[in-house]
Amino acid sequence: MTVPTDLSVSRSLSFPLFLSLLLTSASYTDSSDDETSPRDKQQKNSKGNGDFCIKNIKQADFGRREIEIAEQEMPALMALRKRAQGEKPLAGAKVVGCTHITAQTAVLMETLSALGAQCRWAACNIYSTQNEVAAALAEGGFSVFAWKGESEDDFWWCIDRCVNLEGWQPNMILDDGGDLTHWIYKKYPNMFKKIKGIVEESVTGVHRLYQLSKAGKLCVPAMNVNDSVTKQKFDNLYCCRESILDGLKRTTDVMFGGKQVVVCGYGEVGKGCCAALKAMGSIVYVTEIDPICALQACMDGFRLVKLNEVIRQVDIVITCTGNKNVVVREYLDRMKNGCIVCNMGHSNTEIDVASLRTPELTWERVRSQVDHVIWPDGKRIVLLAEGRLLNLSCSTVPTFVLSITATTQALALIELYNAPEGRYKQDVYLLPKKMDEYVASLHLPTFDAHLTELSDEQAKYLGLNKNGPFKPNYYR
Amino acid sequence: MTVPTDLSVSRSLSFPLFLSLLLTSASYTDSSDDETSPRDKQQKNSKGNGDFCIKNIKQADFGRREIEIAEQEMPALMALRKRAQGEKPLAGAKVVGCTHITAQTAVLMETLSALGAQCRWAACNIYSTQNEVAAALAEGGFSVFAWKGESEDDFWWCIDRCVNLEGWQPNMILDDGGDLTHWIYKKYPNMFKKIKGIVEESVTGVHRLYQLSKAGKLCVPAMNVNDSVTKQKFDNLYCCRESILDGLKRTTDVMFGGKQVVVCGYGEVGKGCCAALKAMGSIVYVTEIDPICALQACMDGFRLVKLNEVIRQVDIVITCTGNKNVVVREYLDRMKNGCIVCNMGHSNTEIDVASLRTPELTWERVRSQVDHVIWPDGKRIVLLAEGRLLNLSCSTVPTFVLSITATTQALALIELYNAPEGRYKQDVYLLPKKMDEYVASLHLPTFDAHLTELSDEQAKYLGLNKNGPFKPNYYR
Amino acid sequence: MTVPTDLSVSRSLSFPLFLSLLLTSASYTDSSDDETSPRDKQQKNSKGNGDFCIKNIKQADFGRREIEIAEQEMPALMALRKRAQGEKPLAGAKVVGCTHITAQTAVLMETLSALGAQCRWAACNIYSTQNEVAAALAEGGFSVFAWKGESEDDFWWCIDRCVNLEGWQPNMILDDGGDLTHWIYKKYPNMFKKIKGIVEESVTGVHRLYQLSKAGKLCVPAMNVNDSVTKQKFDNLYCCRESILDGLKRTTDVMFGGKQVVVCGYGEVGKGCCAALKAMGSIVYVTEIDPICALQACMDGFRLVKLNEVIRQVDIVITCTGNKNVVVREYLDRMKNGCIVCNMGHSNTEIDVASLRTPELTWERVRSQVDHVIWPDGKRIVLLAEGRLLNLSCSTVPTFVLSITATTQALALIELYNAPEGRYKQDVYLLPKKMDEYVASLHLPTFDAHLTELSDEQAKYLGLNKNGPFKPNYYR
Amino acid sequence: MTVPTDLSVSRSLSFPLFLSLLLTSASYTDSSDDETSPRDKQQKNSKGNGDFCIKNIKQADFGRREIEIAEQEMPALMALRKRAQGEKPLAGAKVVGCTHITAQTAVLMETLSALGAQCRWAACNIYSTQNEVAAALAEGGFSVFAWKGESEDDFWWCIDRCVNLEGWQPNMILDDGGDLTHWIYKKYPNMFKKIKGIVEESVTGVHRLYQLSKAGKLCVPAMNVNDSVTKQKFDNLYCCRESILDGLKRTTDVMFGGKQVVVCGYGEVGKGCCAALKAMGSIVYVTEIDPICALQACMDGFRLVKLNEVIRQVDIVITCTGNKNVVVREYLDRMKNGCIVCNMGHSNTEIDVASLRTPELTWERVRSQVDHVIWPDGKRIVLLAEGRLLNLSCSTVPTFVLSITATTQALALIELYNAPEGRYKQDVYLLPKKMDEYVASLHLPTFDAHLTELSDEQAKYLGLNKNGPFKPNYYR
Repeated sequence: MTVPTDLSVSRSLSFPLFLSLLLTSASYTDSSDDETSPRDKQQKNSKGNGDFCIKNIKQADFGRREIEIAEQEMPALMALRKRAQGEKPLAGAKVVGCTHITAQTAVLMETLSALGAQCRWAACNIYSTQNEVAAALAEGGFSVFAWKGESEDDFWWCIDRCVNLEGWQPNMILDDGGDLTHWIYKKYPNMFKKIKGIVEESVTGVHRLYQLSKAGKLCVPAMNVNDSVTKQKFDNLYCCRESILDGLKRTTDVMFGGKQVVVCGYGEVGKGCCAALKAMGSIVYVTEIDPICALQACMDGFRLVKLNEVIRQVDIVITCTGNKNVVVREYLDRMKNGCIVCNMGHSNTEIDVASLRTPELTWERVRSQVDHVIWPDGKRIVLLAEGRLLNLSCSTVPTFVLSITATTQALALIELYNAPEGRYKQDVYLLPKKMDEYVASLHLPTFDAHLTELSDEQAKYLGLNKNGPFKPNYYR
Repeated sequence: MTVPTDLSVSRSLSFPLFLSLLLTSASYTDSSDDETSPRDKQQKNSKGNGDFCIKNIKQADFGRREIEIAEQEMPALMALRKRAQGEKPLAGAKVVGCTHITAQTAVLMETLSALGAQCRWAACNIYSTQNEVAAALAEGGFSVFAWKGESEDDFWWCIDRCVNLEGWQPNMILDDGGDLTHWIYKKYPNMFKKIKGIVEESVTGVHRLYQLSKAGKLCVPAMNVNDSVTKQKFDNLYCCRESILDGLKRTTDVMFGGKQVVVCGYGEVGKGCCAALKAMGSIVYVTEIDPICALQACMDGFRLVKLNEVIRQVDIVITCTGNKNVVVREYLDRMKNGCIVCNMGHSNTEIDVASLRTPELTWERVRSQVDHVIWPDGKRIVLLAEGRLLNLSCSTVPTFVLSITATTQALALIELYNAPEGRYKQDVYLLPKKMDEYVASLHLPTFDAHLTELSDEQAKYLGLNKNGPFKPNYYR
Repeated sequence: MTVPTDLSVSRSLSFPLFLSLLLTSASYTDSSDDETSPRDKQQKNSKGNGDFCIKNIKQADFGRREIEIAEQEMPALMALRKRAQGEKPLAGAKVVGCTHITAQTAVLMETLSALGAQCRWAACNIYSTQNEVAAALAEGGFSVFAWKGESEDDFWWCIDRCVNLEGWQPNMILDDGGDLTHWIYKKYPNMFKKIKGIVEESVTGVHRLYQLSKAGKLCVPAMNVNDSVTKQKFDNLYCCRESILDGLKRTTDVMFGGKQVVVCGYGEVGKGCCAALKAMGSIVYVTEIDPICALQACMDGFRLVKLNEVIRQVDIVITCTGNKNVVVREYLDRMKNGCIVCNMGHSNTEIDVASLRTPELTWERVRSQVDHVIWPDGKRIVLLAEGRLLNLSCSTVPTFVLSITATTQALALIELYNAPEGRYKQDVYLLPKKMDEYVASLHLPTFDAHLTELSDEQAKYLGLNKNGPFKPNYYR
Repeated sequence: MTVPTDLSVSRSLSFPLFLSLLLTSASYTDSSDDETSPRDKQQKNSKGNGDFCIKNIKQADFGRREIEIAEQEMPALMALRKRAQGEKPLAGAKVVGCTHITAQTAVLMETLSALGAQCRWAACNIYSTQNEVAAALAEGGFSVFAWKGESEDDFWWCIDRCVNLEGWQPNMILDDGGDLTHWIYKKYPNMFKKIKGIVEESVTGVHRLYQLSKAGKLCVPAMNVNDSVTKQKFDNLYCCRESILDGLKRTTDVMFGGKQVVVCGYGEVGKGCCAALKAMGSIVYVTEIDPICALQACMDGFRLVKLNEVIRQVDIVITCTGNKNVVVREYLDRMKNGCIVCNMGHSNTEIDVASLRTPELTWERVRSQVDHVIWPDGKRIVLLAEGRLLNLSCSTVPTFVLSITATTQALALIELYNAPEGRYKQDVYLLPKKMDEYVASLHLPTFDAHLTELSDEQAKYLGLNKNGPFKPNYYR
């Protein structure tokens, strides 16, 4: 089987994420396994079922413990399970999924199952699978096709095994990156006749769906989970507020107090980074292209500068723009000795790393994810994660964020699966505001937070339904 | 002339605002004036022009100084004037206005004039006129009809004098509260044939316009200046962050450190209040009905509670909901002695003040805007501004916010006046994103803030025009 | 009677304070009183007692209400009263006092009385007396000699009336500024034979006591209440954190967000100012002479600069040094138009205001406490309180701070009065750490704060007494 | 050679520190070394010198690079070297040292050498030596006796080799933990005749010195470097502000936003922890025994509670008391599932870990430094570093803090070595305030911070020397 060229490109786009999960899962996965390819093994779980392909079914117990720990931090999914004891909103659903296979995903899959769905699953990344979790899922009766360290050929073989099964056709797709969707488009386009919808989580995958939609080729409704307000705020503002500190500390042990930092971009990510660093005693400068965000930066107490005004004096440069070539060689040349450079934005193009790969500069790897780039005069700059995303490469994604995403995915599947004919057309949708609010409400108990309810009189006064939605769709 | 009943109601809606301006202007206005009604006086300015009706033309010099001071803090309008030296985008415009008549408004009017417009102006509030500013405007040739302490009859007479002039018909309306618009609808509906658009600034006025639009009665395009992002963020988040402290201090001299505060509502206003009080060392609790805002409160470090959980222990209760009966008698009964109660929201209904006007409770006015309500057992609660808006009643609106509003008004007039046929229909519009961004950019020099410009390559990469707009319309 | 020249100087040192109290009390005091000097009136209270000299005994009821309100915010003194129901630690004490005569002082005096003391009292400032409070005290049987608007001659006459009474000799002195102490030194030195000690509250008074002590002329023990840790931290760090915002807002209505501010001096006052302004979104620079405080400023996230580096760009200049000539004419010349200049430090010499009183500069009083100083080219700087203390002149001192001071004064009197022979020599003392801690503990209930107690085992482990003191004396 | 029993105890007190350095240095040290004990090897450096005992002289180049990197972050020591080019304040000094042997120590040693001193050095901890740094020092001519993984016998053998050398007697001691000092007391008491002083850095070592002093057995002056203000503030307030976040993230990946945290103790460490967590959006409660610190906590915006009031609801428990048995089994029993428990204080006794080692509880090691303790009902608490210091075990000490300590050590050596006869007696001293200020000033350039200098007139006004000291000794 050959890998379609256009697909291989897309996968590399989600490259940084696997590093993060690689890091997290590193401590859990033993490396003493034998070298036989899982594809060459015949394994069965304790009930005699062999419809899966994973590294080693014997790791199931260890994986189960991982899943149990994750369950404790994903109360929203557990709450969904409870509510599903009476009704099964996914009864009859046949979900084919392609995501990172981690303990958190396992909690999602077992929730979908509790809600009535059948699931077949592949990994969306060749490195990110937690083998012991895959084993626990297989032992639990899930048809999982994934292991850590798949080849590119393995990758597509696993996806194919998920969808290409006699007597079974998926009617829902849960995708992360769009590879699964793309494979079905390429290989089994007829399957879409029975498919009720696609739920897609990643920026890349969503982008592809919009392109399909524009081109008139999207043949089922798709739900864009990536842009729901809860996910956005948590992934960006709140999560980056913490991960910028974590990523910088783990890689460089830098003391934040008194450091001069320039943050390029004052969107949600930039706002989170700036707030955290200011709180830790750094002196923060901001660059912006959008005058509205620029004015917000001013009001929040940051000097708005052009990069060249401060580049000689800052200790840390952080990009959060989503733009390309924000930190170019010219700026890198002018940074002072020891300056730390990293990227928290949405692409790996913000820092022009390529421009540093020239003969006169010496690269020295001083730690995992940390390079010193050394100028002829001895000046060093400290480049983190080779300019890729710091928060994904050098810190971990909190389970709480993953829980929000997973809950949103589950609700999106339920919504698409149960929506009356005609509610959704062949287009890309955001989750209805009310379901966004529902996801949020399921996460409030984590904080022992008590929501106030509108009285009938108040609801009438405000012109709102007592159960929401409470805000216009564009509220962020 | 009789005042139409339905109008008199509407004006009372903007009641709180005048208190604020009354407060501000109090120190500037001498009270030694004679008692003759301006309507009975014959005054002319130094050039012999008498087409105005104000308190006393002799105060013009003093008013001029006020205007000059305001000019220094409204650089965006001054920048507009400069750019207008070449072209006159309002050449031919005949603007009839009805706003508070203050030094800041004068800067706006003189800017409109510099841009080419003719202006006739009345006050939107019977108390808020700065007489000396009105004098300076009259001396400068503006037809102003306004004085501090108008009667209701005076109020409508002034508005009528603005529009009812032989040989002059307005082609643009700038309104604050909708009274002027309403007057023309009632009295001179034919005028709308020549009117190119309405620019409205207030919540109330905008609300009326949407109602007209819904009812199919809006016969010209209208620009909703109130909801532009720059105004909203400044009026709500940033402005309230400061005015909550100011309003509480001026009225009660309370020390914030260590105080327990409950803030009802975590929208922009609530976010601003909470941030400020937390920073001053208060312990802040939040109540919310919307789970998304609730989750934001949690992530921002506030305990989310129901009001009854903390009502006995808090020192200060602040409402920011826009809702009614948030603080009802039941809660007021349970507050502890000395508890301060105030309202920062959008209506004067959030605290059920009416429920406190019962025989067993004693009211004691201890300062301007401060009442002690005393229970039979001696318990006192401290009620501020009788439950009306604290920030308007007991603190001042920063000139910077007024500058943003005035600049937006000017741009909205220019846009409506110059828009090609068909761009705007008989509907209510938000200012185009790009003009929002332009307003923001005009205010950046105040902060000595330097905006970064996209390179051609970057603009292409992002799919943006180099000059904006940079964000989707819903960005907040 | 002539006023000794050397005394008149000292009084003027505490000048700024009266402004503050003047401001606070302004709204409470009616100005409709007759013009007769209190010294020429014969008044008696309802019990026929006439041993007092005040403005008008008829205001007693109004004053009583003021006192009752103050009692609610001074729970520590009320707690002292309760504990004194069994024992009277000041039984036999004859206290002569000279302080501001306000509702808070009244609560102190009535507490001393409840503890067993007899009191005679004069005002330490010719303007600060709340006449109605003095009336309430006189009605309650206190021998008070004070009214608002005393002449210098009145001032000393009142003090003299307190101490010069046949058949009564004070045995304790409570002073604020040292004028009372000085008077007794000058006129009745023999009185010190019976005096057990002096309690002094002000910087000036403490300074004088140390000078007496150095000169070997201090003939009784004195307690320096001014430098106790609770007072210092509250007066400086916590109080200034709030009063810098309040003082600036009340005088200028300036918006803090985005403003560039330089704070001269990073002691406790500077730390408080910087923290508040940073929290409100200002960009704050710091100047310092002490490298340790400078390093603290850096770690707290402030750029440490020399004044000349930022003087051209800042919007607000705040002095907190206790030094002289920190802001000199050279800097004032270079400030930008509209720059606000004020002083939060310990003297009125920090800004060289004298240098601004030159013919080429125009002064314009724009509000109470606010002057525009105008350069020939039209540049204005905004000078607050003519360079005197902003927090005293333009904001109010929170009752909580006054409560801490008053409680410390009461405890200091008790300590000195009851100390066994020999514990205190003829020297100036700080209150013992343990009593400092006791003052603090009496204020914790205000915050519903619950202190943890050491177990016997823990106390032994730490080598501490379970009841304190818990920290070394130098702990701040 | 036998190890004296009383010494072995003391060393275990500094146990946590080695873990930290172990962690830091882990990535730098290759583990592929041969197994021969260094004591059995014969090594010489490139100049033929063999007076050292280390792991492997061949690692010198790698160690040199480490030292060069450290030099860049220790500008104060580098500045001392520069100033010493003219004079050699330690000429003739023979320093024997016993500290962690790391790159930062190497920078200190080479600075002492540049200042004129001869040095012989051993490790104060059996695990913390960076072998490659020791190699670089040996190659550079230093007599170093230390390697990673010494036995207890090796430990004392190395110390002995430092001091027991024919023809060489130390005249200065630099100690960290007091083991070296103790060894000389035990074995070579006569050496103290030539010794001019001891500089001690650790809490433990300082404690021992004070005990010696009390017992009248201290026979030379000793300088307590541990309690200098710069070290205290940086080690405690500023450093813990960062390391609490770092330590929690690295071990648990916990999201801070919205978490409920109780911090036991509000001294400098507690203040740092609380500030950081509040800034990250946690809801923080504080417990205190000292009412003054308690009042500070209130004013800083933290609810002051007893531990039992919140123990059921909090997500994280942090001890910062220096006390013992602050978190006892009773509290651990009542914590909720998943609660994280850790210690930032000064001892490993704050959490009663021993009480958790009972049969009904299961311990599960889930990561390095992270244990789950599992109750019979399945409840887990997450115990970090087995109750030892989190900041030392699970995060790193910033080089900047180490730089301050090392600079203070160098200045203390210079001061004691050059002090005129009689300035220091046989007692324990703090570094003179002025030298504290000097240490601070040497670190200001790191922040590009510009100190203001007093004018002659100002210095006179303040009664200060222009060069300091600027504050009383007790200033913190």
